Amino acid sequence: MTNETIALQLAHRTIRAYKDQPLTEAEVATLMDVARHTATSSYLQSCTILHITDPQVREAIGAASGQPYVGGTKGDLFIFLVDLYRNSRIRAEQGISSEALSSMNLFLTGAEDALLAAQNVVVAAESMGLGTVYLGSILADPRSVVQALKLPELTFPIVGLLMGHPDQEPGQKPRLPLSVMTATNTYPHVESYTEALADYDREVSEYYDLRSGSRLESFTHLVGTSIGVGGAHVSPIAQVLHEQGLCLR
Amino acid sequence: MTNETIALQLAHRTIRAYKDQPLTEAEVATLMDVARHTATSSYLQSCTILHITDPQVREAIGAASGQPYVGGTKGDLFIFLVDLYRNSRIRAEQGISSEALSSMNLFLTGAEDALLAAQNVVVAAESMGLGTVYLGSILADPRSVVQALKLPELTFPIVGLLMGHPDQEPGQKPRLPLSVMTATNTYPHVESYTEALADYDREVSEYYDLRSGSRLESFTHLVGTSIGVGGAHVSPIAQVLHEQGLCLR
Repeated sequence: MTNETIALQLAHRTIRAYKDQPLTEAEVATLMDVARHTATSSYLQSCTILHITDPQVREAIGAASGQPYVGGTKGDLFIFLVDLYRNSRIRAEQGISSEALSSMNLFLTGAEDALLAAQNVVVAAESMGLGTVYLGSILADPRSVVQALKLPELTFPIVGLLMGHPDQEPGQKPRLPLSVMTATNTYPHVESYTEALADYDREVSEYYDLRSGSRLESFTHLVGTSIGVGGAHVSPIAQVLHEQGLCLR
Repeated sequence: MTNETIALQLAHRTIRAYKDQPLTEAEVATLMDVARHTATSSYLQSCTILHITDPQVREAIGAASGQPYVGGTKGDLFIFLVDLYRNSRIRAEQGISSEALSSMNLFLTGAEDALLAAQNVVVAAESMGLGTVYLGSILADPRSVVQALKLPELTFPIVGLLMGHPDQEPGQKPRLPLSVMTATNTYPHVESYTEALADYDREVSEYYDLRSGSRLESFTHLVGTSIGVGGAHVSPIAQVLHEQGLCLR
């Protein structure tokens, strides 16, 4: 039950170190063409993708993210926008109001378009031998990203994506067992997650132990300590969405 | 600049009619394994996937979606959940509060996990010769979906996905030109979208004309008339998110 595409997907790992070799124009064109052919909610195509090539813009986004490898020159940086602005302009040119675009509902269709397109691009990039890393970290300071990209109302930078030629070979981080992550028909009853995840916790600890030789970390400990702490977890995302005219109702 | 995976992605089209041949257990296992290996925000794995095999549950979701092919028996139905509940339980077992999980920020990390996993599954399914259709329509009545799936607090059904053996060969719906959907560094200035999209509007009209022989529809006309009308566009999504304890701040 496997093939080349699936083998690639099962081998996915995050790459954060890249060689000093930018993507070619042809590679970028192919990746954007894949994005364009992704499914889109209600055919509204509420997504725009920016390729960041200006070092100053990139430094601003690197600073917003708080991660050193986001700035700098290695790898090619793309920002996926929820874009309801284009459709509001199309409506305005027909004399039609765009009040509906400020709802949570329409924001979610745009987030869906942008995130599905991003994952489609990731699979295509990996099939070309490139490495990828999602940058949820750009949301640690979304207002600075909005300013750096000169984003109009009704747009929002939902995720960044860095892609390039890998300069590292990291191990694969263990994922939750399917018995916990999937179920049939209704939400599964689990008596004790501590018990259900004991084996998985050991697997995660071994992974960290092999990598760092010191850090002893389990999944349940990480969930207990890292949620709501720092970066995008405590950033003013809701406020900036509202400033952009999104999710108002 | 192409390969088997990319050729497949560029040939994507939505399939809504399926043969009466369910997925095998091995196929489902492979697809879920691909979901599990998708990138995850902050390693929190805030996503759970339900496979709907009970005809009554499926009928309830079909009714909520308002689309006849969502109920019934053809194709296999999956619901992708934003799941912050599992991590709240893991924290509760350690005596730690989960107030942070009610923020927009954490909801977005869960939406990201669920939507990236869904698109990874779509690419894998298409590589196996299966057809797929996203069901944003399940959000036309999210409260009924929450009830049918017996979803606990801090979970939300972000998207449905129907997959199966195609029983139709639809044409490929034309997408926005890359000159409009992508740009470099900053949000692009477009003087008139009516002009910029004139050729694309003609392409879309020809597509509809060939399909139906009657309906004359352009992209800009659709954007002018369909946004905020019916189904998921006018459903109480924000209210149900709040009822689930999500996006409270």
